[in-house]
Amino acid sequence: MRNHFDVIIIGAGVIGSSIAFNLVKQGRSVLVLEKGRIASQSSSAAAGMLGAQTELENDSPLFRLARESRGMFPDLALELKDLTGIDIELYQNGMLKVARSEEEASEFQRFIALQQKLGEEASWIDPYELQQREPLLEKKLYGAMSIPNDGNVSAPNLTKALSAAAMTSGAEIKEFTEVSEFVTDGNGITGVITTTQEAYHADRVIVAGGAWSRRLLKDAGHELDTYPVKGECFSVKTEKPIVNATIFSKGCYIVPKSGGRLIIGATEKAHSFDQKVSLESIAAMMGRATELIPALNQAEWDDAWAGIRPQTKDGLPYLGVHPEINGLFIATGHYRNGILLAPITGKLMADLVEGIGMNKDWATAFRLERNVIGVEKQ
Amino acid sequence: MRNHFDVIIIGAGVIGSSIAFNLVKQGRSVLVLEKGRIASQSSSAAAGMLGAQTELENDSPLFRLARESRGMFPDLALELKDLTGIDIELYQNGMLKVARSEEEASEFQRFIALQQKLGEEASWIDPYELQQREPLLEKKLYGAMSIPNDGNVSAPNLTKALSAAAMTSGAEIKEFTEVSEFVTDGNGITGVITTTQEAYHADRVIVAGGAWSRRLLKDAGHELDTYPVKGECFSVKTEKPIVNATIFSKGCYIVPKSGGRLIIGATEKAHSFDQKVSLESIAAMMGRATELIPALNQAEWDDAWAGIRPQTKDGLPYLGVHPEINGLFIATGHYRNGILLAPITGKLMADLVEGIGMNKDWATAFRLERNVIGVEKQ
Amino acid sequence: MRNHFDVIIIGAGVIGSSIAFNLVKQGRSVLVLEKGRIASQSSSAAAGMLGAQTELENDSPLFRLARESRGMFPDLALELKDLTGIDIELYQNGMLKVARSEEEASEFQRFIALQQKLGEEASWIDPYELQQREPLLEKKLYGAMSIPNDGNVSAPNLTKALSAAAMTSGAEIKEFTEVSEFVTDGNGITGVITTTQEAYHADRVIVAGGAWSRRLLKDAGHELDTYPVKGECFSVKTEKPIVNATIFSKGCYIVPKSGGRLIIGATEKAHSFDQKVSLESIAAMMGRATELIPALNQAEWDDAWAGIRPQTKDGLPYLGVHPEINGLFIATGHYRNGILLAPITGKLMADLVEGIGMNKDWATAFRLERNVIGVEKQ
Amino acid sequence: MRNHFDVIIIGAGVIGSSIAFNLVKQGRSVLVLEKGRIASQSSSAAAGMLGAQTELENDSPLFRLARESRGMFPDLALELKDLTGIDIELYQNGMLKVARSEEEASEFQRFIALQQKLGEEASWIDPYELQQREPLLEKKLYGAMSIPNDGNVSAPNLTKALSAAAMTSGAEIKEFTEVSEFVTDGNGITGVITTTQEAYHADRVIVAGGAWSRRLLKDAGHELDTYPVKGECFSVKTEKPIVNATIFSKGCYIVPKSGGRLIIGATEKAHSFDQKVSLESIAAMMGRATELIPALNQAEWDDAWAGIRPQTKDGLPYLGVHPEINGLFIATGHYRNGILLAPITGKLMADLVEGIGMNKDWATAFRLERNVIGVEKQ
Repeated sequence: MRNHFDVIIIGAGVIGSSIAFNLVKQGRSVLVLEKGRIASQSSSAAAGMLGAQTELENDSPLFRLARESRGMFPDLALELKDLTGIDIELYQNGMLKVARSEEEASEFQRFIALQQKLGEEASWIDPYELQQREPLLEKKLYGAMSIPNDGNVSAPNLTKALSAAAMTSGAEIKEFTEVSEFVTDGNGITGVITTTQEAYHADRVIVAGGAWSRRLLKDAGHELDTYPVKGECFSVKTEKPIVNATIFSKGCYIVPKSGGRLIIGATEKAHSFDQKVSLESIAAMMGRATELIPALNQAEWDDAWAGIRPQTKDGLPYLGVHPEINGLFIATGHYRNGILLAPITGKLMADLVEGIGMNKDWATAFRLERNVIGVEKQ
Repeated sequence: MRNHFDVIIIGAGVIGSSIAFNLVKQGRSVLVLEKGRIASQSSSAAAGMLGAQTELENDSPLFRLARESRGMFPDLALELKDLTGIDIELYQNGMLKVARSEEEASEFQRFIALQQKLGEEASWIDPYELQQREPLLEKKLYGAMSIPNDGNVSAPNLTKALSAAAMTSGAEIKEFTEVSEFVTDGNGITGVITTTQEAYHADRVIVAGGAWSRRLLKDAGHELDTYPVKGECFSVKTEKPIVNATIFSKGCYIVPKSGGRLIIGATEKAHSFDQKVSLESIAAMMGRATELIPALNQAEWDDAWAGIRPQTKDGLPYLGVHPEINGLFIATGHYRNGILLAPITGKLMADLVEGIGMNKDWATAFRLERNVIGVEKQ
Repeated sequence: MRNHFDVIIIGAGVIGSSIAFNLVKQGRSVLVLEKGRIASQSSSAAAGMLGAQTELENDSPLFRLARESRGMFPDLALELKDLTGIDIELYQNGMLKVARSEEEASEFQRFIALQQKLGEEASWIDPYELQQREPLLEKKLYGAMSIPNDGNVSAPNLTKALSAAAMTSGAEIKEFTEVSEFVTDGNGITGVITTTQEAYHADRVIVAGGAWSRRLLKDAGHELDTYPVKGECFSVKTEKPIVNATIFSKGCYIVPKSGGRLIIGATEKAHSFDQKVSLESIAAMMGRATELIPALNQAEWDDAWAGIRPQTKDGLPYLGVHPEINGLFIATGHYRNGILLAPITGKLMADLVEGIGMNKDWATAFRLERNVIGVEKQ
Repeated sequence: MRNHFDVIIIGAGVIGSSIAFNLVKQGRSVLVLEKGRIASQSSSAAAGMLGAQTELENDSPLFRLARESRGMFPDLALELKDLTGIDIELYQNGMLKVARSEEEASEFQRFIALQQKLGEEASWIDPYELQQREPLLEKKLYGAMSIPNDGNVSAPNLTKALSAAAMTSGAEIKEFTEVSEFVTDGNGITGVITTTQEAYHADRVIVAGGAWSRRLLKDAGHELDTYPVKGECFSVKTEKPIVNATIFSKGCYIVPKSGGRLIIGATEKAHSFDQKVSLESIAAMMGRATELIPALNQAEWDDAWAGIRPQTKDGLPYLGVHPEINGLFIATGHYRNGILLAPITGKLMADLVEGIGMNKDWATAFRLERNVIGVEKQ
């Protein structure tokens, strides 16, 4: 196998795969090194919500990034289907953020006003209309914020499709290949070495290893302040769809999938790589979900799992160039928005590799200098 | 393949396999016809409790059968391990039936007196001693009935071991082979015909098809009053064992298995062959189990499943000769006691086939005449 | 639950689900009774080839049915995606039937002439062009018959989508519900009784139970000459697609699926409901497939399975009205063409239920009278 | 949780778990840190042969270690069953190393003479007797070396039982916890830091991470010359056992397991962490196995998998103290003998931690100094 590439990407999750796909489309030769299997960690564990407006509650670079990324999904879905045969199951049925108290109702209405000012569609649904639209929701809710443009995709399918599209378009992806160190010379990065002592060369290396990025950078003497946050989910099956839109409330979301399946999530347990699902977590999520939709009690149990999301101290992802090592790029810290942000992250990082966009707003907001601390290795 | 046998058994669950094993040890040529896979239905779904004293609350033929069957397990475990390499995981750690009210405490104490009169070991454990023996049980229980001789086995392992032992000892077991009709002549049964139109001959046929026995007999013009009762369970994993004995309370049991695994059960839904597990059932079982043992909240979710148990109108199994068709035997209706009763059922049915034991107490109590109604086929 | 319906369908495989979907679209109330789970047998085991021209080698009612059914897939794919969110993964990349000898080359060329005469697209591809189109095929082939309009779908997805679409459109599907007998009066059928003694009423009942249809009809005193044919398959995964079209040779097909997966099949073992895959079968299929495409040697092993296809004595399906029982319809015997023929079967049977199409060519060709033998129950 | 321990062990495979179990029995407080799940890598992938004499062909420290370890299994099996309820499925049916040529026959006979000289049981079985003992072996073999004392265990069960026994006896095992660096002071090691920045303290740390040990040591500036060797296997199921002993030939072994299951292995692919099983590998192993035992052709396909074994340059494991870092111990490089050597490795490493046995033969043979190269971190 060749061992010189234009760009090496570390990690074949949704972020690494999206960057790879964008780079090969720009004509770059790309190698992706994945320590386990493609899409084997949080990229497959996610519920796949595209909550650009649901979860991001004020104007900010992250909000604008999310909005732009959400807008890329319809075309991306067609492109991926065409290249790989994989349907990413893009649902554009909207999201309902339901209010369980007067206070939440007021809060959501203020939030709607803000969204509208920013040019986004959002509207208030009163309890009567909510029952019309979602008859199986519990009767005592105080209304809902309706966000017609937030939807969801199949997170595993999106990740597999992006990696398959990258490979079909010319990228090499090597699974079960763990990078143990970077190779540098006086001018910056020149490649990586794997745990089987193989060397691969490139003068651009992008770390997209999610919550696992930190160790690799630390071994290179650089401290990233990301930390893992475990999220537990479960899924059920129903014969007929029981909700039309994705239902979202504080502490609980219910995401309709193809064929009557629903994903319900999610817990948040910081500083843990543990992938076990506890009885307590299932009980808590079940309790909240069946309170919102009592008909879920009759749904069939399907599965439970956990994923490990990379969070940062200030809650913003790192998308940028390493401040000290020339040619080393980092794209991680997407926390609960990795699926939503994958399309735009792929595009921006590919641009960045070409030297484009360095001075844009988002590049400033998400640059590494805000937190990276270079430490001397003892 | 040969198609004449001394005995044909229909069903390779725990009952059919136990009968087959007993018959081949007596020198009989045996064919077992199983419509799906060995041990694929309730025989593998059971929690495997050997609750001879726990669940059977007064002296009766069924109680005596259960007690005798329980006593057969230690030797059977060794014999099966030796023949097949399969460990049936016989736990002899006893059972604690915990009282959650003064009324239950009184009831259980009366029951202990009865058991002792019958020569069985059973004793009252006060709340203090209960905490000594099971420190993770909730503190507010009113004590427990301790039954040192009730234990549990791995239900799937027992069934697989019995069928493997039968095959190793000479029985033929044909999986994916469904019997569609009996063949009879003026003197009684002479064989069966399968859904692939193959004929197998024997002048003794034993129906041991669990909840699925009824249809076959009905097709032959005979109505059995058994009905299916769905039972849902789930399992969890803990690093260290959190209970020593099997814990039993009204509506909930917690059965410790090898390696820190626990099975928690079970619901009862009559007249259903449905094998789906509902969210509601899991929530209810979780609630009861974590109330008894709060530490279960931290246990890791493992799996959930359902099994279909054959119940009868009077709650007693059918073990006997068909009243009208010479040579046709039936062994079903074991409800929640199929695992416990498998050893004795295997022995008794094998005896019955040889014409032994027809007049014994149990043979009278469980004979088919008490309920079977011969109906003319329209 | 209600228990009167316009039509009861027995079996929720691809045939029963397609009929149900067609009937509810015509405004009929429909109940589907499925003894196990939806799509749990051969409908999910199939490789999903739409081989209207590939496998059917002369003009005949079956060929015309297949051609018409194939033409229904593009619209059906859109309709099902829209109703259920499930992508049936319709591939329209064509089929290459490769010749491994001069004799096969001549035979296929004659066959192409016949197809063209019938107005179908088919053309001869010489060895050089074959290598251009499929560079990884072995070099020594004698050419191929190219059939641009034969493709493939995901058989499990098609079946799940049809059943979900039927349910969403108003059909009731009860899983784990086995019919044990028909209810009739002097005028014909009036309903069915299940193994839990529930009665459901309809004056039209359609048996679509695949290889399992025969027993039910036999219990009703009628002999159908269908028999089960076991087919074993396996699947592999490749990083990049290694073929463009479906590759077909005598005794082996290689069907490309989404994301680089390939299904390779299939054996044919008549008169067996056994679902085990033997080592010998895998070795034989591997040998043939890697001979055709040596690069398959490096593919990753994925899975192996078997399905049970319903075959008839003359190789034609039964689609029609029972000759003796008014209101009883039968749709089975599709053998290896169940997926391909599902759309047209659904439509024709729905028509037949309405009394339409009885005298059409196909209705004559596939009617039951050609073989059904009414037998007196002993 | 406490964070000071007497000993920290890195890796909860069969080696780490065995060391932990031995140390807690000696009264030590022990923490095991496992980056994934207990027994999730090669410890569960192994076929479990105890080939002390089969694979080790001349007198050597490794041979003596293997022999001693093999002798520990019977007592260990009882101890583990008692503590954890897990049966390690120790089979003591012996091993037959079959000769496929005159040359192999001569070679094996010389080897038998050597073994006997060393006091081991081994004898020559001529073709006639071989057929008596294993009637389903192919007829044309040239005889076999019979080794009555080599047997096999369930590798997953052994590993799970050792870790469960360690936990039950007081060890803490933290899964999903990856160590990223060692903490040292002037006197040697003082603890470790995990990828979630947790610090755990001990003045003895044992690296037992199998093929993954190297990266960790390298990050600490020390180069170990181990490398991963991928091994692929598959398993089948038979109704009745088809061999009595483990069958071993050059390039193929067939290991009988409980309930008629057989594991067949194994390939060897150096310098790979890849866990994919290729079609080519399965075909090659199937070919060899069915050549030895033609009846395997009718066996049912079960599963295929791969494991990653740690090999060293001279083929001997590393068992010893790090030459430069006080308190750092290493136990890896067991290659294909990890299961066989686990009991003795556990004991010897526990001794070594106590300062016992440093000067023994084996300690000299397997000490790290023979190969470890301290390198300065760039």
